[in-house]
Amino acid sequence: MATQTQGQAGSGRPIQGQTQEARYERGLKKMTEIYGVPVEEFIAPLGDLGRYMVEFPYGDIYSRGGLAARDREIATIAMLTALGGREPQLRVHMNSALNVGLTADELYELILHTLIFAGFPTAINALSVLGDVLSKRDSGQKSV
Amino acid sequence: MATQTQGQAGSGRPIQGQTQEARYERGLKKMTEIYGVPVEEFIAPLGDLGRYMVEFPYGDIYSRGGLAARDREIATIAMLTALGGREPQLRVHMNSALNVGLTADELYELILHTLIFAGFPTAINALSVLGDVLSKRDSGQKSV
Amino acid sequence: MATQTQGQAGSGRPIQGQTQEARYERGLKKMTEIYGVPVEEFIAPLGDLGRYMVEFPYGDIYSRGGLAARDREIATIAMLTALGGREPQLRVHMNSALNVGLTADELYELILHTLIFAGFPTAINALSVLGDVLSKRDSGQKSV
Amino acid sequence: MATQTQGQAGSGRPIQGQTQEARYERGLKKMTEIYGVPVEEFIAPLGDLGRYMVEFPYGDIYSRGGLAARDREIATIAMLTALGGREPQLRVHMNSALNVGLTADELYELILHTLIFAGFPTAINALSVLGDVLSKRDSGQKSV
Amino acid sequence: MATQTQGQAGSGRPIQGQTQEARYERGLKKMTEIYGVPVEEFIAPLGDLGRYMVEFPYGDIYSRGGLAARDREIATIAMLTALGGREPQLRVHMNSALNVGLTADELYELILHTLIFAGFPTAINALSVLGDVLSKRDSGQKSV
Amino acid sequence: MATQTQGQAGSGRPIQGQTQEARYERGLKKMTEIYGVPVEEFIAPLGDLGRYMVEFPYGDIYSRGGLAARDREIATIAMLTALGGREPQLRVHMNSALNVGLTADELYELILHTLIFAGFPTAINALSVLGDVLSKRDSGQKSV
Repeated sequence: MATQTQGQAGSGRPIQGQTQEARYERGLKKMTEIYGVPVEEFIAPLGDLGRYMVEFPYGDIYSRGGLAARDREIATIAMLTALGGREPQLRVHMNSALNVGLTADELYELILHTLIFAGFPTAINALSVLGDVLSKRDSGQKSV
Repeated sequence: MATQTQGQAGSGRPIQGQTQEARYERGLKKMTEIYGVPVEEFIAPLGDLGRYMVEFPYGDIYSRGGLAARDREIATIAMLTALGGREPQLRVHMNSALNVGLTADELYELILHTLIFAGFPTAINALSVLGDVLSKRDSGQKSV
Repeated sequence: MATQTQGQAGSGRPIQGQTQEARYERGLKKMTEIYGVPVEEFIAPLGDLGRYMVEFPYGDIYSRGGLAARDREIATIAMLTALGGREPQLRVHMNSALNVGLTADELYELILHTLIFAGFPTAINALSVLGDVLSKRDSGQKSV
Repeated sequence: MATQTQGQAGSGRPIQGQTQEARYERGLKKMTEIYGVPVEEFIAPLGDLGRYMVEFPYGDIYSRGGLAARDREIATIAMLTALGGREPQLRVHMNSALNVGLTADELYELILHTLIFAGFPTAINALSVLGDVLSKRDSGQKSV
Repeated sequence: MATQTQGQAGSGRPIQGQTQEARYERGLKKMTEIYGVPVEEFIAPLGDLGRYMVEFPYGDIYSRGGLAARDREIATIAMLTALGGREPQLRVHMNSALNVGLTADELYELILHTLIFAGFPTAINALSVLGDVLSKRDSGQKSV
Repeated sequence: MATQTQGQAGSGRPIQGQTQEARYERGLKKMTEIYGVPVEEFIAPLGDLGRYMVEFPYGDIYSRGGLAARDREIATIAMLTALGGREPQLRVHMNSALNVGLTADELYELILHTLIFAGFPTAINALSVLGDVLSKRDSGQKSV
């Protein structure tokens, strides 16, 4: 297919007849699956920002075929580490990454990989977050 | 209203019964208004990224009440300048800013304002983009 | 005026006969107005960095005509949110924004607007700062 | 294994008896495999920076087990896109990603995924790089 | 002195009786010395942004004692490299650095040093700028 | 020498016959010298990331001739300040800077210098870190 070889997958047209409620429900299901815990108490205090988060990142992007959840979390951890200053989200997505099948060792390898593109400080900060996440999980705590 | 004084405007629930096509049409109209030129040829080559751009930034965010288009372009120019390395978008939104009523002098003042928070290099780069945009408009060119 | 249509407002020449003390006093007055509280105790421990802050951002930039205080705070909040990792300044300027007439709802809309250009993590962090600022103000605390 | 559950893979001790030449040769082989073309002409003009690039990113990091080349390129493309202003490296690694088995459609999905964490401008810029890379490859050009 | 051991050099008070013209003249002289070429044609098209550049970075900061011009250019090159996307300023300040006594080899070492804190892509981009600057200087071109 | 005038110091070839243990020992000695305290307890919990930190930044880069330790710490403080969100590393390297001969006043001047290129928020945050570092050292605490 021509558009595929041009890296432009998708028709670029809205999905026919789909309502916003359906999109929201799809997003809520996907977000719950990725977070591994009920997400309502996380999104409720955010108001419409919470709604957009359910709808766009989870209802639209994460719900697309063509890239596995594991691949998405690899990309997510790498970006959050390299950009720096996004520790709360790094914490959430390290849990997500473990939920969708990445191992602690793979997360460690991924942090090492960011050294090449973003240097040592952000990697060391991410490793500290990973340590916290793993010890919380070892002690049985489940949270976003 | 309680949620308003907490800076959490909006119900956080999807709009009832609204279809994706309606959202897309609303976004296309808003994006055309902001860009000041037909946008189809800009978004078509982007595939689904173009669709999301119509739907989320323009169909959802720019279409919200509560913040005027002029205010939104002030925020946009400031962010694109301060983040750096986003010259193509800066060019588009300097045109948008002029389209929604900001003057060339106000854009100049806005670039000066970024000096405080992001320093001189990104401001000088933005001023160079502004100079290009203004001379293209003076010579009658209209484009994204 | 030719320079205005080129987005290059101002003569580019120093103001004749103005002393540094006059500039400092103008900056101190403007900074106090923007912060909404006495600023001496904030700037004194910064040494010459405090003096430069009074003189350049407030005595020079904020004191310029051509862009209203409200517009400046829109730009400021957008930049500080999008750049990330500048939470102390975000806290100060959310108060400033409220002092110069932006409402809590407008700040919320502004944070939503940053989603387009900088993504979800920095917006969520800014919303958390906004929540803190608003609850401190509700409980009657006034501070930088 | 204890260190694995703590996300701290590896002994943290240097590999016994390994020489720098062996490390360099391993890096050169890995870098050639990832780039898909001979890399000497790319690294020679960089002097010792070229040597470090062979040794550390490729001889050390990319050569580690525990994370597949495909996973590494997912992380790399995501970081380079989100950080912005790194177009030359994005071009190289889009080729690398295709070399190690990612499809053009997967790269497109990956760019869409960055929208969540870094917004639209950097994604649009990355999509433009992807378009260039794909048309060069379609026309039979092979280069770093 | 107490303030010195607290890293808060300077009285924090404006310099008595100094006029803005004197500050501007001091800045113009310092900026010309650092750039190594007449700077009027560079600053004139910037309007008041040019004036602020003369006054604040050069009239205030670069003119302070306590840090040598060579030290300042080391800091400048390191920041511009690590932040990325500031190539025009990197070009100017690589020339400045050579003007105030840094050697081409020291600039090369400095770029290598940024690898630790910001990774390989920004260092490779800076090395490319350095190569251009050096070959322009070898061929006798003097410019900002 | 031709390569020197091209800013490409070094042969770009690995050092003959050097083992990884020798490189690690050189790095450990250099890192201890820069940190001013034993570093084993800092690097041990990092696993292979700790090893790479000893080997590459300290065994390779900091151990190079051609740029003094004082120059390296000037570059380091400037980068960590300007990039923002790297406070733990800023704390470590402010101590390193003082260990290799920079004075508290010079660090203060350096923070002022970053105002030009990265604006006020990151400089104010760095000044806060400097204040903490200096008061810990005054009270006799030695730590990374």
